[in-house]
Amino acid sequence: MKEFDLIDKYFKPLTKNCQASQNLADDAAIVSLDISEELVISKDLMTQDVHFSTTDGGFRIASKLLRSNISDLASSGATPLYYMLGFCKNGVTDTKFLSDFTRGLKKTQEEFSLCLIGGDTVKSSNLTFSLTILGKAKKGKNLKRCNAKDGDLIFVSATIGDAYIYRLLSGIEQNPNRKQITKISKKFQNFLEKRHFFPQPRVQLGEKLVAQNLSNCATDVSDGLLADINQICRSSKISAIIELSKIPLSSASQNFLQKNPQITIEDLISGGEDYELIFAVKPKDQKKILQLSQDLKLDLTCIGSFQKTNTKNYRAAVIDAENRKIKIKKTGYEH
Amino acid sequence: MKEFDLIDKYFKPLTKNCQASQNLADDAAIVSLDISEELVISKDLMTQDVHFSTTDGGFRIASKLLRSNISDLASSGATPLYYMLGFCKNGVTDTKFLSDFTRGLKKTQEEFSLCLIGGDTVKSSNLTFSLTILGKAKKGKNLKRCNAKDGDLIFVSATIGDAYIYRLLSGIEQNPNRKQITKISKKFQNFLEKRHFFPQPRVQLGEKLVAQNLSNCATDVSDGLLADINQICRSSKISAIIELSKIPLSSASQNFLQKNPQITIEDLISGGEDYELIFAVKPKDQKKILQLSQDLKLDLTCIGSFQKTNTKNYRAAVIDAENRKIKIKKTGYEH
Repeated sequence: MKEFDLIDKYFKPLTKNCQASQNLADDAAIVSLDISEELVISKDLMTQDVHFSTTDGGFRIASKLLRSNISDLASSGATPLYYMLGFCKNGVTDTKFLSDFTRGLKKTQEEFSLCLIGGDTVKSSNLTFSLTILGKAKKGKNLKRCNAKDGDLIFVSATIGDAYIYRLLSGIEQNPNRKQITKISKKFQNFLEKRHFFPQPRVQLGEKLVAQNLSNCATDVSDGLLADINQICRSSKISAIIELSKIPLSSASQNFLQKNPQITIEDLISGGEDYELIFAVKPKDQKKILQLSQDLKLDLTCIGSFQKTNTKNYRAAVIDAENRKIKIKKTGYEH
Repeated sequence: MKEFDLIDKYFKPLTKNCQASQNLADDAAIVSLDISEELVISKDLMTQDVHFSTTDGGFRIASKLLRSNISDLASSGATPLYYMLGFCKNGVTDTKFLSDFTRGLKKTQEEFSLCLIGGDTVKSSNLTFSLTILGKAKKGKNLKRCNAKDGDLIFVSATIGDAYIYRLLSGIEQNPNRKQITKISKKFQNFLEKRHFFPQPRVQLGEKLVAQNLSNCATDVSDGLLADINQICRSSKISAIIELSKIPLSSASQNFLQKNPQITIEDLISGGEDYELIFAVKPKDQKKILQLSQDLKLDLTCIGSFQKTNTKNYRAAVIDAENRKIKIKKTGYEH
């Protein structure tokens, strides 16, 4: 199929005729903003055998690609508007794949009210996607990694480790202890699978944190809870203390850990791809976070705090229920 | 080298500490605009063995990558501001390559006053780049492919075919007639080489065409002069007539064609990668284009016109000096 036909058939419908897309007839897209707004832009690459397996199928690959990028905007407190897609096609890119892939994009963009406004396709030996996502925020109202302050509480949304456990169960991720993994119920397995392939970007949470002045510091968990907190620490030049017993786990993950004592919470907090938000909150605002949690019907758990220390090796220390420091071998995905 | 170290050493200097880049400390970049402006965004992929050879070296690959993307903005009449880089590293990505590559970016961004504001790096078996370029334009003041009207003159900047001839001479492109290519002087060869690796995006021309209301329709020649005019034809639902004898050729190209009669202008107008602007001008404004050409010290040549026809197969017909239609086998790069 020629590129123009491919664009007409599969990608033009995703523009929803929005003005910014210029109907994909020009090389450039055009975006306007209100005077009170600024544009928030993020760009990610996903490539086969690193971020996905081609056997995952187009629908899941597209869903995760777009959802993980939306999560980047959510962690900035921005509202997603548009995206552009760079598509390196390879041998597996047949009409079935394209149709599944664009169906995945369509479903996701409908859920988050955004549309495609441009991109590029090339042939390559590797199936690779580059996604640029654009959103808006009120001027100067952003969540940034560099804003954590001494005494700020560290909150995390929903649960941590579900995607990692799914990857252990399905063999995508190697069991660090190389022991047999004991399966869990189909219901739990399905829950974890959904958490892995269809992460839930916390757009509303990010927007509310900014709108209600409850935070100006956040990131999303992509590399691993601990690795991502360490990134905040480095950017903010501050240390952190994380209480291991407070890490929120799903019922499925708890059940898995019971059946697989060789896997521990330490493994989960370095697993990554949770796409939950980590954010800093002043202690005086703790009650408001409780209220926000109820409003959004979304668990928001305090797992520790940022603390000034004498070291310049800014990072998070992990402690157990008895306040003893725990040595963590791996904090997350090594770039 | 770890990703953070790589970013710190090679990419952070390219941000020139501009505010939009957030010092590359967050996943998102933040762009503000004046109320009178809109953002113009384009995204391109370049992958090895399709758009470049790894033996070209980092400096040339980076220069062409950024220059060809700037050309996309030039063809919209926009002013380049920022870019984001997606970088799929492979085996050739050593420190020499990185240093050459970022030197190429630096030199180009200095020439066009833009800076890096974000991106992503991953490992891949293929060296692939995804570039998102952002510029500004006055609201509603753009050059679009869809605006060509009956009677509009077709202008092209500088010369056509130089990059194609370089590719023939260096064996990158196969000679369509499979005959021996006769070399040209070193001076001419160097000129063509520069035209291939360091295309000159016509930013000022695009800006002036818009500011002086001389055109609202343009594109840049990436696929081939004829293929790109055909894209305007399809978008504008109009046909075109191109006079072959008017296609502007450099001295180097003319010399090459004299020595290689097996290659013709028909080959050059489907060669592509010229990154010159094609634009539509009302006949009444022809004199003003002459003036603009003098102001910019840039040849602007009228090569034909857009014309209404009865067909719905909107495309360009090519005629010779005696007004006879010439059959062109290939209009440009087939996507």
